[in-house]
Order: sequence, then structure tokens, then C-alpha cells
Amino acid sequence: MLERVLTDLEARMRAAPDRGKVADYIPELARVDPARFGISVCLADGRQLSMGDAEVPFSIQSVSKVFALAIALGRFGETLWIRVGREPSSRAFNSVVDLELEGGKPRNPFVNAGAIVVTDAILANRAPKETLAEIVRFLRAASGSDAIHIDQAVARSETETGHRNWSLAHFLKSTDNLRHDCALTLGTYFHQCAIEMTCADLARAGRFLAGLSRDDDLISRAHVRSINALMMTCGHYDGSGEFAYRVGFPGKSGVGGGILAIVPGKASIAVWSPGLNRWGNSMLGTMALEELSDAMGWSVFNAG
Amino acid sequence: MLERVLTDLEARMRAAPDRGKVADYIPELARVDPARFGISVCLADGRQLSMGDAEVPFSIQSVSKVFALAIALGRFGETLWIRVGREPSSRAFNSVVDLELEGGKPRNPFVNAGAIVVTDAILANRAPKETLAEIVRFLRAASGSDAIHIDQAVARSETETGHRNWSLAHFLKSTDNLRHDCALTLGTYFHQCAIEMTCADLARAGRFLAGLSRDDDLISRAHVRSINALMMTCGHYDGSGEFAYRVGFPGKSGVGGGILAIVPGKASIAVWSPGLNRWGNSMLGTMALEELSDAMGWSVFNAG
Amino acid sequence: MLERVLTDLEARMRAAPDRGKVADYIPELARVDPARFGISVCLADGRQLSMGDAEVPFSIQSVSKVFALAIALGRFGETLWIRVGREPSSRAFNSVVDLELEGGKPRNPFVNAGAIVVTDAILANRAPKETLAEIVRFLRAASGSDAIHIDQAVARSETETGHRNWSLAHFLKSTDNLRHDCALTLGTYFHQCAIEMTCADLARAGRFLAGLSRDDDLISRAHVRSINALMMTCGHYDGSGEFAYRVGFPGKSGVGGGILAIVPGKASIAVWSPGLNRWGNSMLGTMALEELSDAMGWSVFNAG
Amino acid sequence: MLERVLTDLEARMRAAPDRGKVADYIPELARVDPARFGISVCLADGRQLSMGDAEVPFSIQSVSKVFALAIALGRFGETLWIRVGREPSSRAFNSVVDLELEGGKPRNPFVNAGAIVVTDAILANRAPKETLAEIVRFLRAASGSDAIHIDQAVARSETETGHRNWSLAHFLKSTDNLRHDCALTLGTYFHQCAIEMTCADLARAGRFLAGLSRDDDLISRAHVRSINALMMTCGHYDGSGEFAYRVGFPGKSGVGGGILAIVPGKASIAVWSPGLNRWGNSMLGTMALEELSDAMGWSVFNAG
Repeated sequence: MLERVLTDLEARMRAAPDRGKVADYIPELARVDPARFGISVCLADGRQLSMGDAEVPFSIQSVSKVFALAIALGRFGETLWIRVGREPSSRAFNSVVDLELEGGKPRNPFVNAGAIVVTDAILANRAPKETLAEIVRFLRAASGSDAIHIDQAVARSETETGHRNWSLAHFLKSTDNLRHDCALTLGTYFHQCAIEMTCADLARAGRFLAGLSRDDDLISRAHVRSINALMMTCGHYDGSGEFAYRVGFPGKSGVGGGILAIVPGKASIAVWSPGLNRWGNSMLGTMALEELSDAMGWSVFNAG
Repeated sequence: MLERVLTDLEARMRAAPDRGKVADYIPELARVDPARFGISVCLADGRQLSMGDAEVPFSIQSVSKVFALAIALGRFGETLWIRVGREPSSRAFNSVVDLELEGGKPRNPFVNAGAIVVTDAILANRAPKETLAEIVRFLRAASGSDAIHIDQAVARSETETGHRNWSLAHFLKSTDNLRHDCALTLGTYFHQCAIEMTCADLARAGRFLAGLSRDDDLISRAHVRSINALMMTCGHYDGSGEFAYRVGFPGKSGVGGGILAIVPGKASIAVWSPGLNRWGNSMLGTMALEELSDAMGWSVFNAG
Repeated sequence: MLERVLTDLEARMRAAPDRGKVADYIPELARVDPARFGISVCLADGRQLSMGDAEVPFSIQSVSKVFALAIALGRFGETLWIRVGREPSSRAFNSVVDLELEGGKPRNPFVNAGAIVVTDAILANRAPKETLAEIVRFLRAASGSDAIHIDQAVARSETETGHRNWSLAHFLKSTDNLRHDCALTLGTYFHQCAIEMTCADLARAGRFLAGLSRDDDLISRAHVRSINALMMTCGHYDGSGEFAYRVGFPGKSGVGGGILAIVPGKASIAVWSPGLNRWGNSMLGTMALEELSDAMGWSVFNAG
Repeated sequence: MLERVLTDLEARMRAAPDRGKVADYIPELARVDPARFGISVCLADGRQLSMGDAEVPFSIQSVSKVFALAIALGRFGETLWIRVGREPSSRAFNSVVDLELEGGKPRNPFVNAGAIVVTDAILANRAPKETLAEIVRFLRAASGSDAIHIDQAVARSETETGHRNWSLAHFLKSTDNLRHDCALTLGTYFHQCAIEMTCADLARAGRFLAGLSRDDDLISRAHVRSINALMMTCGHYDGSGEFAYRVGFPGKSGVGGGILAIVPGKASIAVWSPGLNRWGNSMLGTMALEELSDAMGWSVFNAG
């Protein structure tokens, strides 16, 4: 059944009249073909179904925040929340306002400010290279794919033009919520965001959050629950309520147009379409997940 | 197993050193005994287990917003969202700030401003008495209990002292997002909030949201999904992220100390303890739900 | 020289291509002829020069706040500032946001919230009628004109439609910064704002603030200084900086299109033109004052 | 008379029980002796009276913004206001909030964000060294003192620790309101703020704003008026209303504890005391100016 659903879905998405707007504030990302659409689903029975551009690598950007958080929770546990909050934000992903109003503690680990703090935490006085290697290693282990890598050109592009993130980092530094030099933490953060992988690899990498991978090596079950909860309430920035209402399971988007979505116990889904809606989330990606949720009855809010 | 869990839970809650602070801004509510604690759980197999003061009636206050929303969705469907948003708020339940910054459209139907609009919608030019009768009828049908009633003294108390709600209502009126006179809509709203019922009745009344009641008379399955999603992202005001993180299933709190919580497909839970935490949600009620979730593995974010 | 300046000024204002927009949120005010323009200037040598519609009565609205403040300062002195602040606001005249963010203490006595508190203070448990009589008496004494009166239709119009002010009043009540019933204080406030008088009378009424009236009966010299300072920094709401920059002496505007402006030691000026700019201040009135200031060198910021 | 006033004043300030708190966020400034107090007044008749530590050099910090603005207005005139506003801010001097809410246009040239834009404007593709030389030249010409210089240690200290300013600069850059590299503009800004001079020199340097210097070489009379207006409404950050109310003439403070104050046509005053009040303005400096204003009748709001 899922196969037919995906086939229909891809056809409809290919024909979509409005695909949103490709992110243009990172020059390297602005060049991506807006017509791309890929989706891949890993299921509890071990099967993986993919459609469209599911084998084309793209820049996962903020989707990487999920994996950085997984590593940080594994290392620091609940003490991480001293530095970052767990509440949704009603402002844009790169907003400085909440940060100032709340004394330098980001509202959650998925807005940029919060993700920068998480990266700063896992840096832990090591070289950025080591930390990045750890993140890539985590993703390769989770997905079983060695193709996952960092696109240096994208990382450089952001380092040079990502002034809003520099603004956030210096603000965090001014409130003592950054342990390393801004350049060191941000350099690591920009490289982490520049990780490139395919939908097929991303869906596999997310299996541990859906409980589909065989071992508990990557992360404890309590942390899986925590990450899914945060993806539900904060994973789509100020459009998180809308996503929960329409799709009904946890997800995390990136400005590259990718979304990783988790149906606990049932499926790990990666979707990619570069055009964004007004909150900076993939327009067709969100639509595809909504249709998939409806067709499969996958919303966690379904009462049977 | 659930029985032992509830017995242990109740014992621990009875002994809790900090029970939070009873709401004192509604004089009638300030008189409630802070030592009260009751919990009741309806299960998919038809059983209902209750502990403590589960048969003592209390003022459900904002929990009533769930049922008013169910009626409004049934009558107006998605057009309701022209007047109310679906995003979490980072401000207090009675805040006017978002309302002004967003041109008079409340962020969601569970903050006071949004709930006043929902009540205004279901009023629909009828007499308040008729509308209130409809809400009470809905609750009686859902719970199968005729004891559910409106506490007139509480309603009067709020009408006289609820200046923040009057402020919200007049603001909504100034932006043309209220169809009736402020006094009419607010009068209805205050009476709706003054509904009194027991945990046992409330748990039964919530069964339709968990898919435990036998028919679809009350509301469509799509609307059940919508309401559960909103309870997850917005049901505990600016503490909703925390509730999702700790408890992991949808819930709606009231300043009377009650919480209705839904485990889709599995359970409808009502808990009551009058002391509130800093967000205005029942302190022990939240704790009890967290322990229950952990013990039973009921978080929707569990990956099995 | 002033006479020629005023003659030229009036001619230019009569020919102005853009006159702004007449306030329409108070139905009674929306009917005023937008082509009206009047100006009157009282000088230190006792002369008074008037041009245009200087003898046509208009609704002074928020200009009345200056006189209410004068009475309040006379009665309560510096203790008034326990209930109201003295800082400019960056929000609209009828904003609720600052009120909530600052715990119910209005930023200054010239935004609506602050003026409502001032009126509440001078009410002092007397009948509204007595308080209003005192304000009118003050204005008649200051201007020497018995024609000054309250337009009951305008007052009624605001009582029925002024929902933003009702919202402010209830908010103030909820934070215990209102001593009387909202209806009592607001009723008095709406009537105070509905005072009707001519430019000629208003200019004379303002003489005591410019030090042009012969005695100190109305108010102490220290309070004159205080009021002028507040008119400078807060008299034109979130356009106060602009007014200080362009005009350079204290002034207080009203949505009826009137402005009372004070050149300390030199002149008391009243100007009226019903069309408003984007901050809710008279568009031509402001322009006229700017030209007058330039022509006469009346800015207090001139260094000679 | 002024001499006796100043003598009394200095005695009282020396004995003040509370002197406020020396700025500690710039390490170099934290070392200044909090017991310092100096004042110097230049009068229309050419006399200059000084008391206390009026000959001790101190870091003028934000007082330098007045002179940078004078240069910018001279070069760009009213077009400067395309990039900076002219309204008071209700937030702290280093706030990012307004900047984000208003799309990257600082509210006025005296909050840090605005001053950084002004410095960026006068940089105009020249080397920082040249721009700084111009500012110092302006100050030397205005004061007639060659002792005025930049304290390199303070400038370095800020460059390394001034993360809030770096945050502001990157934010401005992200909204295209900065023409040069952040490091270039900020480097210039930090050096400009690190200018060191005495009260005696600063009072002389301010004479052109009071109309006391013999020629119009430095700046036009219209710009003098503009700068004085901005000092009145915005010169003391979110404490500007309070300063206008208490002191009654334009002034600009710096976190080094200096204030330059202007009595148009009458006096140019520099006062210095390192302890700050809660808005970051010199506590004793403000008090001294209030007493001086009262004693001499210098408030521009006095009506004679």
C-alpha cells in the first residue's frame, strides 16, 4: 500500500504549481534546482521505499541539529537544559529577540541560537575537526553509508555570509553561554550544517529515533523520547504548531529543503524539496508528509 | 499493573512536600483545599480506575476549552482558523501582548483570548443560556453523567473580578474579532469555565478524544486528531514544551488544578490537584502524569 | 513679523495637497471637515494672533491630558509617579503591550493608559460630574472663556465604541492601578477627552505653561517645568522624537487634530487641522509648528 | 554665583553615600577610581569654571557619539536618517531587540547600534586611521586642546570583550545597513569610544552646540539644533525621559561616567563621575546637573 501512496505522492508533487522559494541567503544553496523532489521511508519490517531524487545528495542544514542534540544528550544528559530551553519559539529561526529577553538562554535546541549552544557543548575543548568527525561518524553508523560528507564550499559560504548567526554567537558569548571562541564554535556549526547526504541515507540515519534499528548503541530510549518530543513542539520553528496539526508526528526541517520525520515505532522518513514556505520549511516536503500521514494513518494524534 | 501504579502514585502525591500555589485571582477558587488529589483513568478495554478524590467535583476552568473547541470545530470546521491561530504562545495564558502584536488574532484556541473567540463563535446569536446548555449537554453525553453542572458562584466571582479577561474581550472587540457584546460573550465564557465535575466524570468525558467511546456521534475522527495536536503543542500555555517533553501525550490544564490528558487509542485520564506550578498548571497533576507516562510507556514519542 | 508668518503659513496649509486622514475610530469625530485649519498664538507681550478657523470649536481629545496632569500634579505632586512613568513609549498611543511588559505601570501620563490613571487619581472618590466640573473650571480660568464645554455626543460615542480604552482600563484594574470602577474612571476620561473649545481659547488656556499668565494660581513653576518636559519627550506618542527634532518645543496632540504647543517664556500656541499623520498627530498642525519654529527661531535647541 | 553653586555642588558630591556602580564589562574601565568627580562649565561670556577632577583625563565612550554625529550630519545631512531613526528607545543602550523588530534600522544615533551605523557612514571607504584622525582633529579644534587622544588599551579591551557590539554589528551587516566589514567599522567605533580627555576639554569641545564658539566652522546652526534635540530625547538611553524631567536640557552620557550637557545659548557643561545608575548613566553626574539646573534656572522648560 505504502508503495502506491508514495508513487501517487511523487506524481502530485512533481506537478505542484507552487514549490515555494529556494533559500537565497546562503549563496551556495541558491543554486539548487527547485524542481528536485525525493522521499525515502524506512519501515519497522526492515524495508526501505524511495521515490524521486532520493539518491541525490543535498545540504541537510538544520536537520543536522537533531544528530548534534543526540550526541549532546548522550554526553551531558539533562544538564544540557541549564544552557538551552525546551519551549517552542514564536519567532523566526534566526531571531535574536528571545535571546535578549530571556538573558541569553535559547528557547530550544532547534532554533539557531540553541543549536549553536549545543554545538558549543559537544565541542568541549576539542578541535572542531574532531567534533565534526564525531558527528559524521554518528551519521555514517546510523545510516550505514560512508558517502555522507561535509560540503566545504557551503561551509565556507556560510562562514562568510552568515551574519545573523555571527550576531547570535556574539550575543551568546556576551552572556557567557558560549565556552569557545565565536569563530571556533560557529566554524564547527557551519560545517555541521553543511553535511551532505541523500534522502535514502537520511531516512536510514533516523531509524534509531523511530525504534527501527536493532541496538541501543547510538542513544538511550529516554533520549529518543526527548528528541521526538522536541521535534514535535519545536522542529519547524514558528510553524511547529501548524506541522503538528497537519502532519501529526515529529519532524525537523532544514533550509536546504530537507525534513527528517519520525513515526515512533513505525517509520523514519526523509523528504527533500528545496522550495521553502514562509517559515523556512520545505513547502512540498511538508505537503508530502501531510498526505503520507493521512494516507497511512500515521499521526500520533489518531485515536484509532 | 495500572492499579498498582496508581496506588503508588497517589501515595507519593499525598506525601509531596511542595504542592504549588492555589490560584487566588478567582476568590471562589482560592478556598479550595490544596491537599486534594484525585485521578481517574479510562482504558480501551472499558475499565475505569480511580484513586483519591476522584469523586469530588471541582471547577474545570480552562479544561472546558477542549469541549468548546470540539463543538466549534464540529460546527465551523477549518473556517474557525480564520479567527484563531494554531501556534504555541510563549506568553502567559492571559497575555494581551501577542494579541496586539498579531492584530487581534489569538495564537491558539487554548490561551484565554483564543478560547473567548471560540466561545463567541459557538454563541452564534443565541442566548448564552442555550449555548451553555449545549456545552453541558455535550459533557453529559460524553461522560454519561448528569451530575455535571455550572457553579454559579464561581461564574459570578469571575464576572466581577476577571479584569484580565475583560481586557482581552474588549481588545478582541476593538479588532472586530468578537461578534457579540463583550458582556454576552464573556458571561458565557465565565459560566463555561465554571463547570464543575469530578475526575471520574472528566476522564469519561474525554474518551472520545482517545478513541475509546463506541460511536462517532460527538465529533469526527479528523477533529479528534486536530484537538489532540493542539492539546500537545498549546495545552499547557508557555509550559507546553515542558509538558510534551516530560509527559509525552496531549493534555489540557485548568487553573482549578484539573488536567485532562489523552493517550490516543489507549487512555483518557483526568487528574486534579489544586496547587499550580509557575505556568498556572497543576503541579502534582503534571508530576502524576509524568510518572504514569513513564510507568506505562504511554508517551507517543516512545519508539518501542 | 509673526503676523506675516502666520498669514503665509495659513495660505500654504490651505493649499496642502496631503492633509492626512481624519480619525475614524470615534464615529462622531469622523464627520469633521478635513479642510479645517486654525492657529492661534499668545505672546509674552499680551498680544494674541489668530488665523483661519481659530474660532471654531473642536474636540481637544488627548490635549486634555495636559490639564488633567496639571491638576493631578497640583494635588499629588511627585507621588503621582508611583502609578505612572515618565519615559517615552515606542508603541502606539493605545498600546497594551508596554502595560503588560511593565506590570501595569503606564510609561507616561500622555499615552492613553497613563492618562486613564491620571484621571483615576483626580477622581478621588468624588462623583465624575464634580471632577469634570473641576477640569472645565480649570480650563475656563486659564483661558478666560466660558464657552468651553463637554460635547456629550462625542463622550457617548467613545463610551460605546472605545474598546481599546476599555481594554486598557480593565488591564489597569487587574494590576490594581485603578482605584475606581472601570466604568466610572473611563466615563470621566471619555468626557474629559470630549471637551470642546477653539484654538483661540486653547492658546490662552496654555499660557500658564509658557509663563505668560500673570499669577501662579493655577500651578507652581516647578510643575510647569515638569509638564513641559513630559510634553517634549512624550507628547506625540511614538512620533515624539520626530516632533522634538522638527519643531523643537513641547507640544501635546489630540486625535481631534488639535495640538497645544509651548515656547517657554515666549508663546502659547494652539493649532488645529483634523487630518492625522501615521502616529495619530495632526499632519498640517505639525507642519505649521515646524514652519513657525523655523521662522521665529523658537526651538529651545537653538544655540543663538 | 555659579562659582558658589559649583563649590557647594562638589562638596555634596564628594560626600555622596551612594555613587553607583563603575562599568565592569570593559575590563580597562573597571579599574577607574569610583571616588572621582569633576565638573567644568563654559559660559557665554567666555569664562570657564571647573571643580574637582576636571583636569583628569577619562574615557568619554558614548559621549563621542555626539561628535561622530556632528561630522556625519555635516557630510551627509538629512540623508543620514535613511539608515538611522530619531526616536527614543525603551530598551538598554546595547539592545538588539528593536533592531530586529524594526528591520535593522536603529532607533536613534545614540544607542550603540545607531552609533555604529554613524561611524560606518563616516568611514566611507577610508582607512580607520584617517577617520579616527578626523574625529580627534574635530575634538581638538573644538576644544583647543592637543592633549585629546585615543587610549589604545581601552580600544583593545573593547575589541576583545565587546561581544554585544559585535552582535549588533553582525546584525546590521545581515540587514545591509553596514557598508564595511564588521571588524573595520567596529574597530573604528571602539577606538572612537576610547577617546580620552578631561572635563575641562570636553566642556570646551561642546561650546559649538551651545552657540558659544565664535565661528560656524564646525557645523551649521541647523545641525546644532538637530543634535541638541536628539540629545534631549535620546541622550540617556531608556533614562532619557527621566533626564529631561529632572535636568531639563540636552545631554549625552558615556559608560565611562562622563556627561556632556548643553544649555543652548548659555553653557556647555562636562561632568564626570564613574559610578553609574541603572540605565548606565553617571549617577552623581546626573545629580550634579539636576542641582545645577535648579540653582541656575537653566532648564529649557522653565517658563520664566
